[in-house]
This record gives sequence, C-alpha cells and structure tokens, in this order.
Amino acid sequence: MIIVMSSSNRDDVNHVVTRVEELGYKAHVIYGVERTVVAAVGDERGKERLTSLEALPYVEQVIRVLKPFKLAGREVKKEDTVVTCGGTKIGGGHFCVMAGPCSVESEEQMFGTARAVKDAGANVLRGGAFKPRTSPYSFQGMELEGLRILRKAGKTFEIPIITEATTPEQVPVVAQYADMIQIGARNMQNYGLLRAAGKAQKPVLLKRGMMCTINEFLMSAEYILSEGNPNVVLCERGIRTFETETRNTLDIQAVPVIKLHSHLPVIVDPSHAAGRWDIVIPMACAAVAAGADGIIVEVHEHPELALSDGQQSLRPSKFGKLMETILPLLNVMGKVSG
Amino acid sequence: MIIVMSSSNRDDVNHVVTRVEELGYKAHVIYGVERTVVAAVGDERGKERLTSLEALPYVEQVIRVLKPFKLAGREVKKEDTVVTCGGTKIGGGHFCVMAGPCSVESEEQMFGTARAVKDAGANVLRGGAFKPRTSPYSFQGMELEGLRILRKAGKTFEIPIITEATTPEQVPVVAQYADMIQIGARNMQNYGLLRAAGKAQKPVLLKRGMMCTINEFLMSAEYILSEGNPNVVLCERGIRTFETETRNTLDIQAVPVIKLHSHLPVIVDPSHAAGRWDIVIPMACAAVAAGADGIIVEVHEHPELALSDGQQSLRPSKFGKLMETILPLLNVMGKVSG
Amino acid sequence: MIIVMSSSNRDDVNHVVTRVEELGYKAHVIYGVERTVVAAVGDERGKERLTSLEALPYVEQVIRVLKPFKLAGREVKKEDTVVTCGGTKIGGGHFCVMAGPCSVESEEQMFGTARAVKDAGANVLRGGAFKPRTSPYSFQGMELEGLRILRKAGKTFEIPIITEATTPEQVPVVAQYADMIQIGARNMQNYGLLRAAGKAQKPVLLKRGMMCTINEFLMSAEYILSEGNPNVVLCERGIRTFETETRNTLDIQAVPVIKLHSHLPVIVDPSHAAGRWDIVIPMACAAVAAGADGIIVEVHEHPELALSDGQQSLRPSKFGKLMETILPLLNVMGKVSG
Amino acid sequence: MIIVMSSSNRDDVNHVVTRVEELGYKAHVIYGVERTVVAAVGDERGKERLTSLEALPYVEQVIRVLKPFKLAGREVKKEDTVVTCGGTKIGGGHFCVMAGPCSVESEEQMFGTARAVKDAGANVLRGGAFKPRTSPYSFQGMELEGLRILRKAGKTFEIPIITEATTPEQVPVVAQYADMIQIGARNMQNYGLLRAAGKAQKPVLLKRGMMCTINEFLMSAEYILSEGNPNVVLCERGIRTFETETRNTLDIQAVPVIKLHSHLPVIVDPSHAAGRWDIVIPMACAAVAAGADGIIVEVHEHPELALSDGQQSLRPSKFGKLMETILPLLNVMGKVSG
Repeated sequence: MIIVMSSSNRDDVNHVVTRVEELGYKAHVIYGVERTVVAAVGDERGKERLTSLEALPYVEQVIRVLKPFKLAGREVKKEDTVVTCGGTKIGGGHFCVMAGPCSVESEEQMFGTARAVKDAGANVLRGGAFKPRTSPYSFQGMELEGLRILRKAGKTFEIPIITEATTPEQVPVVAQYADMIQIGARNMQNYGLLRAAGKAQKPVLLKRGMMCTINEFLMSAEYILSEGNPNVVLCERGIRTFETETRNTLDIQAVPVIKLHSHLPVIVDPSHAAGRWDIVIPMACAAVAAGADGIIVEVHEHPELALSDGQQSLRPSKFGKLMETILPLLNVMGKVSG
Repeated sequence: MIIVMSSSNRDDVNHVVTRVEELGYKAHVIYGVERTVVAAVGDERGKERLTSLEALPYVEQVIRVLKPFKLAGREVKKEDTVVTCGGTKIGGGHFCVMAGPCSVESEEQMFGTARAVKDAGANVLRGGAFKPRTSPYSFQGMELEGLRILRKAGKTFEIPIITEATTPEQVPVVAQYADMIQIGARNMQNYGLLRAAGKAQKPVLLKRGMMCTINEFLMSAEYILSEGNPNVVLCERGIRTFETETRNTLDIQAVPVIKLHSHLPVIVDPSHAAGRWDIVIPMACAAVAAGADGIIVEVHEHPELALSDGQQSLRPSKFGKLMETILPLLNVMGKVSG
Repeated sequence: MIIVMSSSNRDDVNHVVTRVEELGYKAHVIYGVERTVVAAVGDERGKERLTSLEALPYVEQVIRVLKPFKLAGREVKKEDTVVTCGGTKIGGGHFCVMAGPCSVESEEQMFGTARAVKDAGANVLRGGAFKPRTSPYSFQGMELEGLRILRKAGKTFEIPIITEATTPEQVPVVAQYADMIQIGARNMQNYGLLRAAGKAQKPVLLKRGMMCTINEFLMSAEYILSEGNPNVVLCERGIRTFETETRNTLDIQAVPVIKLHSHLPVIVDPSHAAGRWDIVIPMACAAVAAGADGIIVEVHEHPELALSDGQQSLRPSKFGKLMETILPLLNVMGKVSG
Repeated sequence: MIIVMSSSNRDDVNHVVTRVEELGYKAHVIYGVERTVVAAVGDERGKERLTSLEALPYVEQVIRVLKPFKLAGREVKKEDTVVTCGGTKIGGGHFCVMAGPCSVESEEQMFGTARAVKDAGANVLRGGAFKPRTSPYSFQGMELEGLRILRKAGKTFEIPIITEATTPEQVPVVAQYADMIQIGARNMQNYGLLRAAGKAQKPVLLKRGMMCTINEFLMSAEYILSEGNPNVVLCERGIRTFETETRNTLDIQAVPVIKLHSHLPVIVDPSHAAGRWDIVIPMACAAVAAGADGIIVEVHEHPELALSDGQQSLRPSKFGKLMETILPLLNVMGKVSG
C-alpha cells in the first residue's frame, strides 16, 4: 500500500513507519516536494488494518496497489476456467445459452417453454422456484413444487437446469434438484449464502449486484472459491444508474475487464439489464461480440400473462430469432455452442 | 395503473381492456391526440402482472400510480411510530444516539468504549459480532463470544445494545443477547433474513442498501412489518454514487421524504456514509436539523489500530465533542435525548 | 399528461381541471379506489407549466405520457437518416470509422497518424484543436494552427476530417476547416453552442453528456434540428457511474434504445468510455453487434508520449487489428464501410 | 504520482524511470513482493502526460498523490474567503440567503416576489433572465428585458441581485446589470464561460454540475480564479443518482469536504436538489447545520402558475416559515445573516 502523509514531520512519519512494520510490512519513505509518501511493501490482501491508518490526522490517504482477490485472479491461474453444467461447457471457447421463464408457474408453462428453448438450441433451462421479490405481496415462487417441475422438464427435454437459491438452507435442496445453482444480484454480498454455495458440489452462477463494482464482484466469487468450489460462472446483468429508459445499464465493458483480471467464465443477462424485451436481441449480439462465454435470457410463451418479468421476456418465436442472429456472430468469434 | 398505448387501434385497446378486467380492475379508456391511455382502477399493490402488459407490442409503458407499500405508509397510520429499545425511545420527538465500535474486538476494547460513549451521553451501545466483510480474508467478527462481551458491557454500563444479524439463523441468538437487531445495508433485500427479523420479539434497525431506492427501502420494512413486528427503525447510511471523496453519498433528503411517506422513525449513520472521521460531526448536525430521530456513530478508543473501519471511527474525545455540538441543535428542534 | 391527485375532494379536483383547461388541454377525471387521476389530453411537449401543478398541495405527481422530442423522433420520420461527411456516409447500413489522436500536437504527429488510420481503412480523421480540459493548467490545444494542420492532413491523405467546437464563436471557423463539427460531452447542454451548430452548413456529431439521459440527449439533438440542420449523428461515449475500473460505463443499450425512438445515426466512442486502451477492440466489436452506425477511436503513434488521453489511445498496429476484427462482424450485420 | 508496474523486469522499469525523469520528476523505485512501484517526485498538477504512461503494457496504473487544484486550495490560503455581493457578505461566519423565482416572468411577478423575500429577510434576490432549458420548445427567459426588470426590482427593494449567464458574450451584460454572476450546473465545465467569468469585475456563484465530482468542481473554480477573479462562491445543488423520489440527491457531505480542501464559501440550493417544495425547509436547516455559508431558494407567489420550476418553488408564506426556522439554528452555529 501507499500511505500519503498530510504532514512531513519526522515524528509523524516515524509513527506511521512503526505501525506499518508492526503489521509485518517493510516501509519505504519518500520525501517529496509537496507530500511525503510511505510505501508499505508486502502482501496487503485481507489486511484492512492498514486502511485504519487513515484515522491518524497526519495521514491523508491509504492507497491500495494490489487487487484484493487471489483465487479468482489470473495471477494464480493463467488459463481460462471451463465450467461444466450437466454436460454443457461454459468458457474456454464454449458459448452457453441459458433460457427459460423468470418463474416456474405451472407444469404446462414450464414444459411448453422447455420444449421451445430446447428446439431453438438453448443449452441450459432456467426457471425460478424461490423468488426474491421486492414486495412481500408479490408472487414468491412455487418453491419445492417448482423445483420438481423444473427437474421434470429438464429430464423430459434432456437439458440441464439452473435455478436460484436465496438462503443458505436452500442451497442443498437446490443442489440436489438442479445442475447449477444461481445466486441472484440482490444476494451477491449475502456471505452466508456464498459460503454455502462454496460448499455445494454443483457449479454456481453468480450474478453481479446492481450496485457492486467489478472488484467486489470478484471478491464475492472469492468467497465461493475459497470454500473449495472452483466452478463459478460470473454473470453481468446490468448496474444501477440514472438512466430510466432501461431497468439497469448493461456494463458490457465488464466482460473484457473481468477477463483481464480473472480466469472465470463470464456470461451476460440482457433480459434483466434491459427490463424490456425489445432490445434483448441486439444486446445478446453485443455480448457475443464483447467476448462473453454465454447469455441467460428470459423466455415465456405468453409474456403478457407472466406472473413476473413479462415485460422483459421473449416469446419463443423471438427467442428463435435471437438464436439465428447470434449463430453467425459466434462463428466469427470462433466460439462453439455449449 | 396507467397503461400508455403505442397503438390506438380499437382491437389493441380492447385486448388491453380485457386483460385489465380479467385481473380484477375497472378500465377507463382515454383517446388522446397523440396517445391512447387505459387507466386501470383498483388497488395495484402486489400486482406485478399488470406490468407484464408491457410485453404487448402495442403497449408503450405501464405507469404505477400508487406507492407499493401499505403497513409502512402514512395512509394506514398517520401518527409517528415510537420504537423502544431497552427503555430508550426512538421517534416521536425522542432522539437516540447509538455509538460504539464497528467490531467487538476484545472485552477490554468494548468496555473502554462502552464507558466512554455512556459518559458522553449515548443512548445505545453498538458493536458487531457477526461481520459481513467484502473479503473472505478480512476479520469476520468474534461471533458468539462477541455477543457475550457486548452484553456484558451493556449490563455493566447500563446501556441497551444493538448488534447485527447476517443470516436468518443468527436472528434468534442475536435477539436473545441484544436489545435491538440490526439488518445491514448489504442485507436490505435478503428477504429470508427480513422475514426472520419480522418474527423476532425485538425491535429491528433496518439499514438502507447502498443501491436501493427509498421505495425499495420501505418495501423491505414492509417485509418485517407484515410478519408481525411493528418495531422497525429505518437508517439512512449513504448511497453509492460516482463521488469518491466520500465512501458513499449521504442521502440527507431521504429523511424528510421518508417522513412524508412513512410513520417509522428514521436515523442517520454519518460514519458509514462518509467513510472518514473528519466530517462525521457536521453530518451528525445535518441529521438533527433534517429531522432525523437519531444517529448511529462508530467510536473506537484507538481508531488507527481498529480491525475494521478505523478510518471512519471517532475517538472518545471527538465523540464527546459531537454530543456537545448536537445538544443545542436538538433543543432548537424540540427533540429530547433518548 | 396524467395528474395524480393526493386528494379526491371535488373542489381540489375542479381546481386542477380548470387549470388544465386554461392551458388548452381537455381534462378527463377518473375517480379511483385509492387515487383520483386527471388526464390532460393534448400535446404536452414544451409545456413545462403543467409540471408546475405539483406545487399544489393536493397534487401528488404529474406524469408525462409523450416523449418530449419531435423532429428527432421516429414518429415524424420513420426511415433512418443517412448523414454524409465529406463523401462518407453514416447510417442506413453505412458504418463509419472515425480515428485519430485526441489532440493535434504537431504536423509530424498528425501526418503520421493520418497515414496510418487511412491505410488501415478509417473513413474519417479526428483530431482536437480546441480542447476542453478539466484543469486550466493542462494543454488546451493548438487552436487555429491545429485546425490548419488537421485540414492539411485530411487533404494529403484524402480523408474527411472532424474536430470539436467548444464555444458558439468557434463554430463558423470549425465549419470552414472541417467536414464535420463535433460537440463534446461536456457541452451537450451548452444550448448556445447547440444553436450555433444548428445554423452551420456542416454535419454535427453530438456526444452524449456523461450525466445525461437518452431523453435529454435527444432533446439536445432537437435543438440542432430545430435550427434547420438535419445532419446530426449521435455518439454514445459512456456515462458516469460508480464503477472505477473504467473511466465511464459504456451504455451499449443506448444504441438500440435510441434507434427505437429516433431516425438519427448512432455511433460509439469506445476510447472515452473505457479510458483504457486494452478493452477498446472488444468494445468496438460490441458496438458493431449492437447495431451502431460507426465508431470513433483514439489512435496515437506513441501513446505514452501523448499530451492528452494517451492511456486510452491505440497504437497504429492495434488499430489495424481492430479494423481486421470488426470487418467480418460488419459482414454478418450486413453493413458496408463508410 | 505513483506508477504501479505490472512488470518488474529491469528494462521495463528503467524505461519508465527514463520517461519520468524526462518529464522533470525524480524517480524512486520500490521493488515489492507482488508489485514494483515507481514514485515520481515533483509537482504533478497540470501534468496529464504522466497519465499517458498507462499506455505502456507494463504499467498497470498511474495514481495521483496531489489534489489537482492550487488557487482554490487551503494550502495556498488557509483562512476562509469572504465574498461581498452588493454589500452582503458570504462566508467567514456570514450566512447569505438568496431567494426569488426561477425565471423573471413580468415586472408584477418580480416586484411581488422581491418585496416578499426582502420582508422575510433574504439578503440577495435571484431571478433568471437567460434560461438554459432542456427543450428548445420551453420558455427560454425574458433575456435583456428580464435583466432590466430584475435590476429595477433590486433597486426598488434595496436588495442585491444575482442572475445567470449562459454564454461568454452574456457575461459582460450580466455583470453590468447584476451584483453577482451565476454559472449554472449544466455550464460548470463550459470553460469559455468560466474564463469570461474570471475576467468579470463581479463575484461569481458557481453551481456544481450534477454529475461532477468535488475535485472537478474545484477545478472549475480554479479556471475562474486563475483568470484573476478571486470572488467565487461554490453552490452544491444536488448530484444525479438512481433515486427518483427527488430530482437530484443533495450531497450534503460536499459542504464539509469542500471546506476541508478549499477556502471558498459554499452555499446550498435545496430547491434544485429536491425538485419538490415539500422538503425544502428541512434541507435548508440541514445546510445550516452542515456548515454552509448560505442557501439559494426558489420563491414564487403562485408556483402553480410558474413558467418554470413551479413544483420546487416556495410560496412567500412558506419562505417566511423557512427564515423563522433557520434563524435559531444560525444562532447555535454562530453565524450572522448576510
């Protein structure tokens, strides 16, 4: 870390040097024209205590030099991680399309959508059974019954399934039914849930919190990895900004930035980012071109009747169009499906 | 709700009218010069399905007219709610100062700080035992041992205590040890945790998520209230913006806005909003003047040695200064302490 | 507009109805279960006065139904506008690559870069002569001398040129030297400058303010259009958010959203959005796939020596790589170069 | 500056050292465990070129150590600046209340409001003659006629006046009629306008851009100061965030943060921040308590008829209430009026 002093008084500088050394770092002092700087040499990760030096009146700022993550970083693993979800590959040249309704609403609905997305070429079927909803009065999901329907649909149409867990206790049951466990954006910093997912034997799709930085996103992946589960896929799903034409702002730059820092696969959720169906296809194309390893898209046979998120769901015919549109782009990018 | 049509074609309008009526609303159609509008008359709260009408190509936008909350709103309860925490009152003219370290680090540290804040006039003692940390490698709190130390400090210095629960399972044990349960900003939309807090027999301090709107904040309070716990205090602690001089941007306007909409008490956390000790006192003053019902402030005897959040913690002497500074403002505002 | 009443009292409603009618609208009153709503039928654009009704204590909210723009909107012109810049076409299937240094620094620098970008296939040469800089102590551009060098480079290498005007008085001189006038992000709401550009006889590239919504962006285009200049190209260049890994967040969703609302061409500036050279190529690809009509990219022969924006400039070799990478994507998208 | 290397290769480090020295700095190299760091010692202000080193593949990041402003900073002037506007003082213990309508609409309206705000105790009269409006179809102000009315009102009621200039050419005429020149939020980075204001013989009120950082705000003040005009008052008027209950988010923390960095007076505009009249009084109180040197408030005799900003304007009676409410707070804070 770099500690910028607001004072160049020798006693003040010495006090900081002593503290830095007590914490196990080597200290280098550089007396500048306008500011004195103390460089603390050593691995700063996990050492929040250095930051507490800002409490001293003669310390102006403590600046990190290292990224805070380890296992998620390229420095410990140069090559791309490839995650397998029920036989489908994600990452390392394999592009995965996950599709399905926001919520499991009934067997009929789920089977209809499963058939449609499988026929169109989707690799994984999505559907929510436990729904984190802003309002306690909104539909909260079919829960266990939803899991059973989703699994049945997956088996019938021979397609792996992914669904969300919202509390640590749900993780084992979700892991039992599904091929992949989803952690939603609102739970990206629910550390109990992350730890539970880290102990599960199934791959995890971690969605970025809508107000979380890329650094925090990778730190949340670090929680899962550090519990022993190496199969983490990251999902950019839009961040919250002042723009109101869309539900969130898709941070498409996050795809290449994460790939510079991390070996983990990154997919994009154009449905939640947009919050409107009419720009989902161009955003799926942008995700492919930006180098994403997959997309996750909401599809519903009758979006106008959906119990949740109808406004951002594609009809099966539009989803078919999406698949047709991205295929030549995948070819150009040298990616193979699933 | 108001449904703005992008088409004025009779069939399209009739289809929307039919859907609106099927969902139990009365529909009024207004043919305008540029746009046709369908007004859906009825209670729209919890009815996400109307929003799904945006999936229709001839619907441009579905606009809410009602606020989504009920129990948290002034319309069901006009007078201010007063919450009692171990004998101390919050709201309705009672101003509550909560103070203490970010984390319980040791009995010595906790007792030293407890004595100092009690002497200076604090009403409630804070201290974290279960710590939600961005990094899995940072100090995660003393857990149960921390709860015991905090309770002992509260008893010794005769001051009620508040501490955070981060998972649903921690709620009963926190409720057993503490006088008030804190739900942290990162967990504001952890609905399992909100429901558990709603079933607890202790009052709850709900902190605003740094990515959450005032509406979403009140909807999270609604989760707790709808489970039967009426003792909820809201805490504005800063939202995330582009400004980097401070850790977050204190949304001081949230105080009067929430008070217009809701009967629940609102307090302010200037320490987390600022992320730096040197503006905590003026922000505590601003909170008083804006009409807040209290503040929660981080205090540490040796901030530069703190295991977490040292840079934003006040030394006891500065905290004493804070109390002296706000007292005449409280008098002017007609508030009494605790 | 829709006026949501907080009171259903007949006198209050009648007062609002009277005001609405005085302003030339027809009023429809809908008495709902929880709220009474007054629909004001008529063209609301430019009528800010309706919003002032929110000053009445019994009016809760005034909600717009119509988009505020006219000339920029698809409703007055369905087909895509194609803008011509010195012989190069932008929009309607024509993809335009603008490239060059942030600032004109010398004839040698400008000629070197001009040759390189022309050889690689760029359609338009960029280079700043008047530089709006955050600091009064930073390099402010070569001004008139810069314009002359830029024009000479354009002539020598037979490539149209674009450069920025920062005040109304600069518009005529920029229009005299350049084939296209650029309005920078910080000046998107500099209405005097917009009006001057609207009176110029050259096409205008309008960059989105980093703090501005898509609606505001289109309203700024409306200023130029309403002065009689129909040749406006919009440029998405990133908006300001909390993320710090990149200088700004590229709002890639803005491309299809603007295309739904407007007939004007839209290009993307990946260099300013990223603020770092190492993700410019994938973002150029994403722009193509999202349906953009062009890109504008910073290129410098020796970025590490650049007087401004070196960190986000591509070397000529990298720019050549960019051109090779986007070409097959343009083919797939059915776009032709320039 | 601190240059963080991504490579520790001696040649790479030496190349950076050479560049740093060529630019006139002394270089110190610190070889760390994980990263090598080059400290460039010297005054970095105005030296954007160091940042261009990020273009080198072996440079990870260039980090500033010094604040970029000079004249606006406390380091060159420790004591608070007191600005005089037509006899009224702002700063250094003098609290200034500016009040009046958004726009000058007529002599009758202006005189009515002037009388009301003067009677209630305002120190300066505001009113817009040149209006920067988002829509070209909205009321654009009475221009020169508006200036004349405003001056007449100021003379009649013996109160100094402030009004906005929106282009460099307007500055001399505004300076001729008004006691203080306002630069609006949308023009905070209109550098031509800032320079013109810097050459004027009247004090300047500079409003913060709604998406500008505190650092950028102070750099815009630096433009005015560096042209020779030392009489700059800063105005915090809300920043743009995701919250939609209010028009902008009042960054109340900016008041003490600016005061730590700068000697310039800081006032608050609660009307524009809120965009709604019903929280203006508590926010005015918060401004006083946070240490602001004044407020600027929109007042209109008939807000529901206002040509602009009616929804955020106070009626004279409410403004009277505001003055009564802040007076005892000013006493507590040790401030005197005007």
